[in-house]
Amino acid sequence: VSLTADGLRVLVEHVRARVPRAIGRAITAVETEGGAAGLSKALFPSTGRARVVGITGPPGAGKSTLAQRLAQAWRRDGKTVGIVAVDPSSPYTGGAILGDRIRMSEIYTDPGVFIRSMATRGALGGLARATADAVDVLDAAGYDIVLIETVGVGQDEVDIVKAAETVAVVLVPGLGDDIQAIKAGILEIGDVFIVNKADREGADRTEAELAMMLDLSALEGWRPPIIRTVAPRGEGIAQAVGALASHGEHLAATGEDVERRRRRVRARLQALLDERFRATVHSRERAAGGLEEAVRIVGERREDPYSASERLFGDVIRARSEG
Amino acid sequence: VSLTADGLRVLVEHVRARVPRAIGRAITAVETEGGAAGLSKALFPSTGRARVVGITGPPGAGKSTLAQRLAQAWRRDGKTVGIVAVDPSSPYTGGAILGDRIRMSEIYTDPGVFIRSMATRGALGGLARATADAVDVLDAAGYDIVLIETVGVGQDEVDIVKAAETVAVVLVPGLGDDIQAIKAGILEIGDVFIVNKADREGADRTEAELAMMLDLSALEGWRPPIIRTVAPRGEGIAQAVGALASHGEHLAATGEDVERRRRRVRARLQALLDERFRATVHSRERAAGGLEEAVRIVGERREDPYSASERLFGDVIRARSEG
Repeated sequence: VSLTADGLRVLVEHVRARVPRAIGRAITAVETEGGAAGLSKALFPSTGRARVVGITGPPGAGKSTLAQRLAQAWRRDGKTVGIVAVDPSSPYTGGAILGDRIRMSEIYTDPGVFIRSMATRGALGGLARATADAVDVLDAAGYDIVLIETVGVGQDEVDIVKAAETVAVVLVPGLGDDIQAIKAGILEIGDVFIVNKADREGADRTEAELAMMLDLSALEGWRPPIIRTVAPRGEGIAQAVGALASHGEHLAATGEDVERRRRRVRARLQALLDERFRATVHSRERAAGGLEEAVRIVGERREDPYSASERLFGDVIRARSEG
Repeated sequence: VSLTADGLRVLVEHVRARVPRAIGRAITAVETEGGAAGLSKALFPSTGRARVVGITGPPGAGKSTLAQRLAQAWRRDGKTVGIVAVDPSSPYTGGAILGDRIRMSEIYTDPGVFIRSMATRGALGGLARATADAVDVLDAAGYDIVLIETVGVGQDEVDIVKAAETVAVVLVPGLGDDIQAIKAGILEIGDVFIVNKADREGADRTEAELAMMLDLSALEGWRPPIIRTVAPRGEGIAQAVGALASHGEHLAATGEDVERRRRRVRARLQALLDERFRATVHSRERAAGGLEEAVRIVGERREDPYSASERLFGDVIRARSEG
């Protein structure tokens, strides 16, 4: 996606006027490395107003239905909602969460709701970077609430939901032993815990285990509430909306929102720097003796990976500072 | 972990003599950025002999028990086995997969088996990098087979199992709708698919869905077999071992192993370059006007993230090429 200065100006205008096709086009633009910088710079003055909420959890936790129900509840409160559904578990395919648009169809025709799926685009994808940019697009478009929905509980998802002010972690009863490992990993990122499919056997146990782990971890200030929901029936949705709002108020009241914003900005700058560095390595590639030569040498066992990367790093820095 | 030249020489000697405490100490050393380079360079000449197998899948798939059973089967064939169990879902805590040592206790007393857990150590962890280095340690220690076990199906896990020649993806019946998204994402990395807990309801359906997806994807040469296992009872383990071995033979016979090795080396060099760049950004931090100043400026909305990262990138490159 390449935009002229005029095209960029018009696109920004249309995004700010909340024209759905323009918003979609802008998100496509930020998904590609080349289109991201110019557009994000131009949109930046219009951002900073939306409330950004993240929702994550293991596959099968029913996050899509939950997101739909939350969006409906916010709509009833008169708020507009932008949703970015991110699927880092699709590393090679482009069409993530295909089912969502269908499953979310109830809200799909509401002009006060915008839904967009995103997926990894190969190793250089920078999905966390693109997600933060997509949030900016929806923010600039004036959506009151931007919801980031992501599948999974690994570092990818942590990086992605880092763009949110408040993070809801969704669990379900009976996901097996390894869920303990998950819980340990996501305790720190959950501001609100949702036990979805709470009509299933084992909901009491899941909630009790979660409460115990929250007791054990020395949390200060905000104690993450545990909300039970049965999303398809709308049960517990009002409580979930209330808990998310309470956390937002807590952040503002304690000034913790400033520190959180700083953390988000730091992560985002770091990701942008990483992406820029990778682009530099690849542009260096076009010259002689880049990454591919090092790959061949190490592959033939003529040099160890550390020595090769040290040499290559020096070359890249020199070439870049000279060029 | 800081090692003198003498200490390094002794450690390498002891790793090569397969002294368990030395192997453990060497893996701890490669887990920390500072200790990795010197040790990996010194071990490099002793590596390249082990057969490296990866095993991944969603939480609750029973990978630990499966890994134990595979190790036992290999041991019966007279092979020694090193296992690296990696948990990227523990982003902030150090003690990953605490339960494994207990669950794997049957093989834990066998001197022909070495087991080590690893977890993310914060944002600069470079878990994929550390895993590849740990594989080198076990390879240099002379283990015939090195097994990388990782929990999850996101980009982290893909990056981690990339260090393996052959990857087994483990699924279980009845993990819900989102499993479809997972399957789409991991189809490309699975050389062998294992439907574990195959005595559960829905195993036929899981296998059929998987077979259908494999039919749809245009795979050339190797058709990934689908093996059913019930790990605690040892059912299907012989078939799984056979399938993993067949894939290794396929790689060697077709010369595909060379291309795979190239891909592994490329991913590894890229990760090392990334880590080196991040270290440079952080060393730059100690001087005036680094990342933290940019974080403050963007946080106060005086500059957009893209402009700030461009400026900072230029500063880092200049400082590095001058210093």
